[in-house]
Amino acid sequence: MFDPIEKLKEYVRHASVSADPKFQSGMDGARDFVATLLRDMGFAVEVVPTALHPVILAKRGDNPAWPHVIIYGHYDVQPPDPLDQWHTKPFDPVIKDGRMYGRGTADNKGPLMAHLAAVGRLLEKNPNLPLRITFMVEGEEEIGSKHFKEFLLANKEKLRGDFVFLSDTGIPNPDQMVVTVGLRGMFACEVEITGPKSDLHSGMYGGVLMNPLQALAELCASLHTPDGRVNIPGFYDRVIEPEKWEREQLATLGLKEKDFAAFLGIKEFHTPPGYTPFEAIRFLPTLEFNGFSGGYQGEGTKTVIPAKARVKITCRLVPGQTPDNMRETILATIRARCPKGVTLTITEQHSAVPYVVIPPDRSNTPKDQSPVLARAFRALEQSATDVWGKPPLYLREGGSVGLIADLKQVLGLDAVMPGLFLPEDNLHAPNESFHLGVMQKGIELSEQTLAALAKQ
Amino acid sequence: MFDPIEKLKEYVRHASVSADPKFQSGMDGARDFVATLLRDMGFAVEVVPTALHPVILAKRGDNPAWPHVIIYGHYDVQPPDPLDQWHTKPFDPVIKDGRMYGRGTADNKGPLMAHLAAVGRLLEKNPNLPLRITFMVEGEEEIGSKHFKEFLLANKEKLRGDFVFLSDTGIPNPDQMVVTVGLRGMFACEVEITGPKSDLHSGMYGGVLMNPLQALAELCASLHTPDGRVNIPGFYDRVIEPEKWEREQLATLGLKEKDFAAFLGIKEFHTPPGYTPFEAIRFLPTLEFNGFSGGYQGEGTKTVIPAKARVKITCRLVPGQTPDNMRETILATIRARCPKGVTLTITEQHSAVPYVVIPPDRSNTPKDQSPVLARAFRALEQSATDVWGKPPLYLREGGSVGLIADLKQVLGLDAVMPGLFLPEDNLHAPNESFHLGVMQKGIELSEQTLAALAKQ
Repeated sequence: MFDPIEKLKEYVRHASVSADPKFQSGMDGARDFVATLLRDMGFAVEVVPTALHPVILAKRGDNPAWPHVIIYGHYDVQPPDPLDQWHTKPFDPVIKDGRMYGRGTADNKGPLMAHLAAVGRLLEKNPNLPLRITFMVEGEEEIGSKHFKEFLLANKEKLRGDFVFLSDTGIPNPDQMVVTVGLRGMFACEVEITGPKSDLHSGMYGGVLMNPLQALAELCASLHTPDGRVNIPGFYDRVIEPEKWEREQLATLGLKEKDFAAFLGIKEFHTPPGYTPFEAIRFLPTLEFNGFSGGYQGEGTKTVIPAKARVKITCRLVPGQTPDNMRETILATIRARCPKGVTLTITEQHSAVPYVVIPPDRSNTPKDQSPVLARAFRALEQSATDVWGKPPLYLREGGSVGLIADLKQVLGLDAVMPGLFLPEDNLHAPNESFHLGVMQKGIELSEQTLAALAKQ
Repeated sequence: MFDPIEKLKEYVRHASVSADPKFQSGMDGARDFVATLLRDMGFAVEVVPTALHPVILAKRGDNPAWPHVIIYGHYDVQPPDPLDQWHTKPFDPVIKDGRMYGRGTADNKGPLMAHLAAVGRLLEKNPNLPLRITFMVEGEEEIGSKHFKEFLLANKEKLRGDFVFLSDTGIPNPDQMVVTVGLRGMFACEVEITGPKSDLHSGMYGGVLMNPLQALAELCASLHTPDGRVNIPGFYDRVIEPEKWEREQLATLGLKEKDFAAFLGIKEFHTPPGYTPFEAIRFLPTLEFNGFSGGYQGEGTKTVIPAKARVKITCRLVPGQTPDNMRETILATIRARCPKGVTLTITEQHSAVPYVVIPPDRSNTPKDQSPVLARAFRALEQSATDVWGKPPLYLREGGSVGLIADLKQVLGLDAVMPGLFLPEDNLHAPNESFHLGVMQKGIELSEQTLAALAKQ
């Protein structure tokens, strides 16, 4: 069996930033790395082209009587900037205090490596394991899985499985397994305001026209109320309140607001009334500004009124909401709030439908839940209890993995999602890292779960 | 005599951006160019070091009975960005349709070249011209003449003149000379808001904390009222209303709002009530945002809540206001408007005192006005009338030339400022250019004015 830590290092060295074409060789390298590893494990590997970054599809086992698990991962990572805030080089992994530092270590190279190692071990012990396994590893997750739905539609026949198994969600600490049972969706857009036809001298022309930066600041400022709610009429209308057991599971976690504030490095929370920060993250939609730019940003001053200003906005959506049923609600308000005298341009960016799955044996478990899915949840519960010494919690999470909704919609498959990254892992931020103790537990969890599933 | 157009081309090729240390060789080149030209014209040239960019001081004539004119210019230019919006290379001057394109052609290399050529001609005709002339050409005008006041204090004795003569202001069209008799002052600062201790994933943490971009947008949005006034208590308290003759001179210009809006490329003006845009530019203070940044600004999306957001603000000040008497009014409001839960840091940047000079023979001309200054104004009026075929107008302008207030304060000298650049010249913006017909008129204006002054 390969050494998962050494292999992960090798994997992280491929700078596979899907958002930026100048990282093409990193994308190619990461994809080759995964394909080769799977081939060495005895899988039949296909690299399926898409309009941008290909998907790796690797299969073993062909007895239709065996359960069929589809293990998902992504080989692309977030851009590493701001580079000056990294303490180590983002694509030169370093192990320190039980963690591996590097872009993509936690999102999602480390967690995928845990499943690869689990399957490797399992097949080494039992090459005839009565389980069909398909690895499906895509390269566009960080850019919204742009062509993944097309890929699913085109490869539906190969993906007739029982459920999808993946780790691209989090746990609150190394001692508590959390199975993610819901993800927020997303609606993203870029809003540009154009004023004068070119940049103007702010002395010669200041004070007589609407400055695009001012107009955009006014528009942005209008989108929240002082109590932390999103100030868009109808924004909360379709929100489905969580089930009682979900709030209870969350309370069981015993998270402390004070610790959370200290972890984030903030003075206070700014959460809508009636929700703890932990609830707001999971159960409420948001509107966040991800980038704002316009005018001179260099050293010193430049007395300019810029011709344009731009803001990047993402709204997280919750069950009941979809990009389609929220689009007009959001965009109509943005249009209505644009000050006079300037021109507004909205460019829609990627979106994701929210997702919820109900584990077996809950008050609201669907009656028609697939037996293999129910077995998988039960196998996972047992393995997690063995490895962690206590049962897992089932929680929704604040992030979005839009493809989960696509898997449900296109393939009809639900997802079983044991989390493997920690809040301290700095996903999408400088100094991303992955906890190697959690990785070890993740390998055992995946191995035991799959073994149990194969036995039944 | 040298060819002023060829010489200007040569001058513009030196990329003398004072704000950015990587343009040091351009700064050195531009300075050497001016010093050499003045030496060739028979001036005694000194290059006087300052803490950053040296000042060129060049003198001719030493009979104390002669009037002494100090001709001011600056050899530094604005940064050329955004580079992708230039149609030609900013430091490779190109002549097209009677204009020379390039960074600094109008601000201030072309206008200075007009005075250099005028003096060159004058001295060629009469090497014994009974006039003391000192050229004083600095290299930090575009960064707020940072060390110019120190320079003036240290070189007071050499600068015992009668008035300062300069062209670093504008005219509305090539057919109307305007003498600038007032400039707005400036108060500049950068405001930074810090939220969480590092960039955060907007899915995992969105909706529970004050996003620094949102906080800064809210702060910025609070600084204007919908009618276009600055929303800072006390902001207009010290503003001195212009004299009646000033409003009349401005009305004489016959500027049309429709043409002005078309020139700026805006749909409508956003001017405080009771002022035309032309009046607001000259007579009212402003608060403008010159740059706003924070978060991801690259291609595509990055779902991040940035740790920091920054805005660059400049306030233009008018007579009655000074950076010192306005500082606390402005900063106290900015501090008070910062939303809770984030940290505000304000860095003050360069400032300038507003300036006004009253030409002779006006209702409010000071009784103790220097006779040589009055003669200079009258000589300029006559020359402008000869060259343009109609009398000049005397107007305040919206821009700031802070050093003018320093010249007044340190040397006790007023400034005589015939404008030479046009609205179309794109100062501080891409595709800056200078009208060569106006340059020619400027040479004649300067030559005749100085000749008349020498005669008297």
